[in-house]
Amino acid sequence: MANPPIVPLVEYADALPEVRAVYDDIMATRKTDWINNFWKVLAHDPANLKRTWEALKVVMGPGALDPLTKELIYIAVSATNGCEYCTYSHTASARAKGMTDAMLMEVLAVAAKANETNRLANALRPPVDSQFLPKG
Amino acid sequence: MANPPIVPLVEYADALPEVRAVYDDIMATRKTDWINNFWKVLAHDPANLKRTWEALKVVMGPGALDPLTKELIYIAVSATNGCEYCTYSHTASARAKGMTDAMLMEVLAVAAKANETNRLANALRPPVDSQFLPKG
Amino acid sequence: MANPPIVPLVEYADALPEVRAVYDDIMATRKTDWINNFWKVLAHDPANLKRTWEALKVVMGPGALDPLTKELIYIAVSATNGCEYCTYSHTASARAKGMTDAMLMEVLAVAAKANETNRLANALRPPVDSQFLPKG
Amino acid sequence: MANPPIVPLVEYADALPEVRAVYDDIMATRKTDWINNFWKVLAHDPANLKRTWEALKVVMGPGALDPLTKELIYIAVSATNGCEYCTYSHTASARAKGMTDAMLMEVLAVAAKANETNRLANALRPPVDSQFLPKG
Amino acid sequence: MANPPIVPLVEYADALPEVRAVYDDIMATRKTDWINNFWKVLAHDPANLKRTWEALKVVMGPGALDPLTKELIYIAVSATNGCEYCTYSHTASARAKGMTDAMLMEVLAVAAKANETNRLANALRPPVDSQFLPKG
Amino acid sequence: MANPPIVPLVEYADALPEVRAVYDDIMATRKTDWINNFWKVLAHDPANLKRTWEALKVVMGPGALDPLTKELIYIAVSATNGCEYCTYSHTASARAKGMTDAMLMEVLAVAAKANETNRLANALRPPVDSQFLPKG
Repeated sequence: MANPPIVPLVEYADALPEVRAVYDDIMATRKTDWINNFWKVLAHDPANLKRTWEALKVVMGPGALDPLTKELIYIAVSATNGCEYCTYSHTASARAKGMTDAMLMEVLAVAAKANETNRLANALRPPVDSQFLPKG
Repeated sequence: MANPPIVPLVEYADALPEVRAVYDDIMATRKTDWINNFWKVLAHDPANLKRTWEALKVVMGPGALDPLTKELIYIAVSATNGCEYCTYSHTASARAKGMTDAMLMEVLAVAAKANETNRLANALRPPVDSQFLPKG
Repeated sequence: MANPPIVPLVEYADALPEVRAVYDDIMATRKTDWINNFWKVLAHDPANLKRTWEALKVVMGPGALDPLTKELIYIAVSATNGCEYCTYSHTASARAKGMTDAMLMEVLAVAAKANETNRLANALRPPVDSQFLPKG
Repeated sequence: MANPPIVPLVEYADALPEVRAVYDDIMATRKTDWINNFWKVLAHDPANLKRTWEALKVVMGPGALDPLTKELIYIAVSATNGCEYCTYSHTASARAKGMTDAMLMEVLAVAAKANETNRLANALRPPVDSQFLPKG
Repeated sequence: MANPPIVPLVEYADALPEVRAVYDDIMATRKTDWINNFWKVLAHDPANLKRTWEALKVVMGPGALDPLTKELIYIAVSATNGCEYCTYSHTASARAKGMTDAMLMEVLAVAAKANETNRLANALRPPVDSQFLPKG
Repeated sequence: MANPPIVPLVEYADALPEVRAVYDDIMATRKTDWINNFWKVLAHDPANLKRTWEALKVVMGPGALDPLTKELIYIAVSATNGCEYCTYSHTASARAKGMTDAMLMEVLAVAAKANETNRLANALRPPVDSQFLPKG
């Protein structure tokens, strides 16, 4: 059994009004009737809960990139950082947005390869080629 | 001025035949007439040069994901790991494949946000919701 | 000479009105007459510029912890992640808020020691002691 | 159930005299009658056990910074590195030294925000402002 | 109980021929009659399975460094990145190749110390001494 | 030109007696007549200078592993963490202890490969095989 969370989960029934308002917006936005545990621990800091949710809603929404591409990027970063919770939650989100197993395996192949070559470059210290430098 | 690379750059004129063969394939694949410095330092290990290039050519090529999406993922991981060389080289590659500044800024917003929430989850240790667990 | 930034610096004179509004708030809040380069590159995404600045203003302001303690934490994290820009900027901010050299050296001694013991624990995998588990 | 540790726990009854001496000092310093598992795995290298404990005792003790502030920094680094054991143990230590939930949530908000902006800076590569450079 | 893997384990009986071929080579190379779970999840991407296994077989084989030294390096990196699976699997591999507990504890002491001094250097930013620069 | 260090270099002529004593021991141990810049910045915290040097002298000295193997591990960790200073200094130290270019390239191939597979494992979350678990 996993260790308990560092702070207790704040359930809807016990939440402050400002926390409930965020929970309501999460469920309305996602068209679900439950709140995942990440928000229930973050709810101990209602201001950060609200700020993080509102930022995430915008950042992960449609823009120059589509929401599925953004979930793939989230998975790649979470794998790089070794965040177990985020790996499960964002893999689930990406699947809900249409990610196939083939897409998942390709994201991870790219992310893993980047982790490999990042270290070769950081260890061997090649100078950045002038062709790669942004034009002023 | 940047510090010199840890091992000298292996220029085409001085390269072993097996290194030249990789260099030739890089230039043919990319339709360019130059080799970037990452490969010129990796050339001190011709077997790894060949293996890394051949893997990268496949991993970054079209598949379930398109090559531009893969470059965006590479940028997100390289930013997470703080690899200066990779940041410049893959931003240039992504731009050559059609990445706009708006897309770049969105990739970074997503990657940065993932780095933020990864730490909130790793610090607060919420249990993974049963709804997120893969079905057996 | 350092490599140029990945995107050009957005100077006040050339900034969009919504960017200027953030720049004005940064200068008013800090009682300075200049904008540091971090914001000038982030300005290519005005919404993220505004969101990041407004979040940072709150997060780094007084609360249960004082602003200087928060700067020390920022330095510790930035050192852990190897962010050169952030190391210079937050060391300068912390000094402006009263950090002495003795305090800086202690922050770094603690952060470095945490980086050491984090790896011993992650490698040897001791079970979390029941005494450390939060009470339900 | 968690996986077993990589090396067995060295209990007091089975410990070498030099290990017992360190255990005794840990308990005397902390005014407790038990040893946490981190030390029990590290005890397989008695010299490193002694060195790490003695360094930690000094580094985490009072100085230019107070012990509670140092625990907060430890939490921030451990969250950044994703060390589960360290997160639980140092959160417990910090609480024993007076950390409230409000303080914990603020430490994490700062640490998470630093992780976010570290990546924006590492990806966009703004030059360090001359105003931030230490005076010679 | 640990959370289930993100993708199901691909058992030999259910594997595609190209996956079976890799599994057969893994067992023949290692002189074992079982496949560890890392390969069973990677098998969802048969091309990456084959590429990763074939690269690993070469990279971890004898060369300028012996296979045991290479396992020690793997442990040090896996501890630095906090990879639980890799820590268990490579510690087991290293033990099978002759690593004693004394050797394990020394690898970890070195890796942990490197993690500590890496942060002191990244925070204090000493210029690289000219004596350390490679000769052109 | 690199940015100046965060704190000035403490030169021998200006050093406190307890700093000089460490500098003297570094030069005597290494049989050199100069001190590298890492120690000159750390010297602002004489107690940490002394503690870090004395620990490093023991940890990097001969034991169950030889000093060259330990330098290789240091390089692998420093590359993983992206520490520029440490990469240059420990590559130079390893060369002085007999590391050839072939050995360097193999260390980096192993370290890079570990960084790659660490992420595949952290993303796909295979359960640790019972065969890999330490016997109680």
